[in-house]
Amino acid sequence: MRMSISKKIYMEIDPPDTASFTADKDRIIRALKKDFGDISFPMKTFQKYYKLLRDFDWKLTVTMIMKGYVWEIIRIERGNTTDVHYGFAADLGSTTIAMQLVNLNTGRVLAEKVMFNSQRKIGDEILSRIFYVKDNDLRLSELQKQAADDLNLLIGDLCKASNISQDNCSVMVISGNTTMIHFLLGFDPWFIFHNPYTPAFNSAEFVPGENLGLTIPGFVYCLPSAANYIGGDTISGLLASGMYHRSELALYMDFGTNGEMVLGNNTFLLSAAGAAGPALEGGISKQGMPAKPGAIDSVRITKGDFAATTIQNEKPIGICGSGIVDLLAEMFLEGWIDPSGAFVPGKSERIVTRENMYCVVYAWAHESGTGEECLFTQRDIFSFMETKAAANTMVSYLLETYGIGPGELKKVYLAGAFGRYLNLESAITIGLYPDLPRDRFTVLGNASLLGAYMLLTDAKLYDTAESLIEKIDYLSLGEAQDFLTKMYAAKFLPHTDLDAYPSVQEKLKQRRT
Amino acid sequence: MRMSISKKIYMEIDPPDTASFTADKDRIIRALKKDFGDISFPMKTFQKYYKLLRDFDWKLTVTMIMKGYVWEIIRIERGNTTDVHYGFAADLGSTTIAMQLVNLNTGRVLAEKVMFNSQRKIGDEILSRIFYVKDNDLRLSELQKQAADDLNLLIGDLCKASNISQDNCSVMVISGNTTMIHFLLGFDPWFIFHNPYTPAFNSAEFVPGENLGLTIPGFVYCLPSAANYIGGDTISGLLASGMYHRSELALYMDFGTNGEMVLGNNTFLLSAAGAAGPALEGGISKQGMPAKPGAIDSVRITKGDFAATTIQNEKPIGICGSGIVDLLAEMFLEGWIDPSGAFVPGKSERIVTRENMYCVVYAWAHESGTGEECLFTQRDIFSFMETKAAANTMVSYLLETYGIGPGELKKVYLAGAFGRYLNLESAITIGLYPDLPRDRFTVLGNASLLGAYMLLTDAKLYDTAESLIEKIDYLSLGEAQDFLTKMYAAKFLPHTDLDAYPSVQEKLKQRRT
Repeated sequence: MRMSISKKIYMEIDPPDTASFTADKDRIIRALKKDFGDISFPMKTFQKYYKLLRDFDWKLTVTMIMKGYVWEIIRIERGNTTDVHYGFAADLGSTTIAMQLVNLNTGRVLAEKVMFNSQRKIGDEILSRIFYVKDNDLRLSELQKQAADDLNLLIGDLCKASNISQDNCSVMVISGNTTMIHFLLGFDPWFIFHNPYTPAFNSAEFVPGENLGLTIPGFVYCLPSAANYIGGDTISGLLASGMYHRSELALYMDFGTNGEMVLGNNTFLLSAAGAAGPALEGGISKQGMPAKPGAIDSVRITKGDFAATTIQNEKPIGICGSGIVDLLAEMFLEGWIDPSGAFVPGKSERIVTRENMYCVVYAWAHESGTGEECLFTQRDIFSFMETKAAANTMVSYLLETYGIGPGELKKVYLAGAFGRYLNLESAITIGLYPDLPRDRFTVLGNASLLGAYMLLTDAKLYDTAESLIEKIDYLSLGEAQDFLTKMYAAKFLPHTDLDAYPSVQEKLKQRRT
Repeated sequence: MRMSISKKIYMEIDPPDTASFTADKDRIIRALKKDFGDISFPMKTFQKYYKLLRDFDWKLTVTMIMKGYVWEIIRIERGNTTDVHYGFAADLGSTTIAMQLVNLNTGRVLAEKVMFNSQRKIGDEILSRIFYVKDNDLRLSELQKQAADDLNLLIGDLCKASNISQDNCSVMVISGNTTMIHFLLGFDPWFIFHNPYTPAFNSAEFVPGENLGLTIPGFVYCLPSAANYIGGDTISGLLASGMYHRSELALYMDFGTNGEMVLGNNTFLLSAAGAAGPALEGGISKQGMPAKPGAIDSVRITKGDFAATTIQNEKPIGICGSGIVDLLAEMFLEGWIDPSGAFVPGKSERIVTRENMYCVVYAWAHESGTGEECLFTQRDIFSFMETKAAANTMVSYLLETYGIGPGELKKVYLAGAFGRYLNLESAITIGLYPDLPRDRFTVLGNASLLGAYMLLTDAKLYDTAESLIEKIDYLSLGEAQDFLTKMYAAKFLPHTDLDAYPSVQEKLKQRRT
């Protein structure tokens, strides 16, 4: 049976009498010990309650947190309150923070909310935040407080929306990248970004919420990181995938601000990471944009007819990651661009020359909310192909390290927003994903949040997470000598090695006949 | 090999490099895990040190405390400081506080000091302190602070005397009776003194010294109590005796302000307790007094000649416990008093009548520093015999509960100041101790302090202490129906059952021929 990382136990304890003179505290501990082993009941906690036990008539509910090697009592209430037992799972991203309020008795998510990370005021780029706090404890405290305030805001909103008291929320499991967790716990992340890129800590154990300025009682557990770029968010994602305990060979891919990948199964796990974000977030193009209303998010070209959709059907003002991947895939299949990504002029009236550069017009001025042509230029394409080549090469490297062909992958887990929104066919067409039977792909969505939720509701995953970080190997691509050669080969659509993409070959055949 | 409850480990850790990207904190933990299992390194502690590790050039000394189920890191220092590693053992008595500063590398006691408990300002009697704090948190804090201040005073003195920095003292093990430990940890002991006499806690786990206002880093461990009157001081004494792990049947006796006894061996432990103090501390007699300079502390009567000694050879001003026991034993053997304790007038010129009562003059006016006769009255004798009868009856009860004859006792452990200073022959003569071969008696001295010292220097005894309290049974004498009948039989010198005291019979034969 699954047991959440927090536990509420209703107890009717025999009151002390002359035949049973065990002390109050020890009566409670001994009653629990049989089922739960070692129990910690710090004197500071016990002191809050010891005068109340007789008023409670020895009928009480104990809340305990599984702190890895021991259950710790954090709260005592009068009577049976086991029906109100809640916790939080949170994904602390550098851009957005997502949080769920969970009923720990049923595992049901009662409410979920997302907000932008307030630290973006200091800088959208995580690097600017790191420079901001360097050698400045006051600013470090400022970022710590921003993180805590954001979490408190979500806590408040979720509790209000669910009509639940914060006092009944005993634990929060947080997944986030290594730097975000350093900020939250008040640690300067400087060394993460300097050779040899070592975090101050991987595991943070359980931290009392009050130490962080959180308004809920009990503890916060942050998923541990395996390395600088393989943070608690990736560990959480691996928990969500379950690939670490299955024998089938799997690949975990998460493209967000960074790209993280893990190849493996229950016998090995090999990870790699690299900066991927700007391209996928549309940062490469003048008109690239995040997935907001008005962003082109899908493109289809049928016999020369160009059709696109925008988010919330608003007038197009730019193009986001899923739109770009579609655009490239469709233009390639229709022959508007060649395998190197170069435009084939004359293939469409949308291929135009602006400022001495070929471009595709993905929305005309009269369609556009901006009154301007929406353009994706030759430079944008080449720039994007750098990113897709990097991603592709990371996969190749991981596979080759173990002498594995891409076809041997039995599962590909797609994490993050891009995993959810990218069109699978288009991503395979341009060679961003390997060309495998489609049923081998599983979209996890926000795997970081999902893993945090899973650990929250299943205490056994604590050990799993903590041991995962010792099992994962990390492939440092900066050290890989032929990385650039390989990357060059990947800078083609889908790849110079077309044999690895049979379904793309088939599509080309169909479209061009 | 014995391992102290605190451990210092010098480590030369490989600095992080690109092939070894484990985080700083986890490098330290993983290096220790092999030898020490689970390691806790709370973020609050780590935060103090994480920026220094590179300055330390990864050559550092870690101090850890064995917190029962896990080693916890409490301090990191630059370089190898394993040679300076100290801790404290303390006996927190309601009258006096004794403390030792111990070199944890060698187990050597570097300095020892005793002071009066400052709480005596509130009241000599522990009950007056209990009433003082009842329902008054401010006063409870006052007593807590007094206890901490006393400990800090001793810490300061011992460190100064040994020229040792308090920073290098990582742990303190404290034994004390149940009420004193409640005061030290800031708990109202009210319920200890009300039916069914249940303490708030038996086990206090490890408490951070700073939570108690102590000036040393690290943790305080208080030996757990088994029951209201069987406190951490008795548990500590049992550790010191070692009787809990041997098969031979033993009796542990501690007469201080209260009397505590434990009968048993490695298969059972049965305890009993009762108020004994005033009589033994000389509180029964107008001229009874604690063992201070000028107190008569030994008496011998040889063929009618009365000889006494005083503490520090000062002029006699009263009589202390060891003097009273000697006085009664010698008077009985010489026939000055009969087996019921009644004076036999005419046996000595020292037997006089004052205020219509027989008395013995144990110091004449011209010998006495007070210029008065020093008298021990018939009432004093009867009063003392109540106490000795109570003690004797406690022993009988314990033995009879298991159907054991006194001769089967293989060991008698005498704890406390009275165990150390009472003349063994005299105590047997009056029937305070059972009449056994003398080599079965072992004087432990301050067994409470000794047990604390042993646990400090041997981490394995933590488990022993915590499990002892679950093994000890408690014999409630208030419930024993024939206690008064039995006590009546014990109100003779040495006892109505003279056959149980063969060596006393022999002495009587020798003296009276």
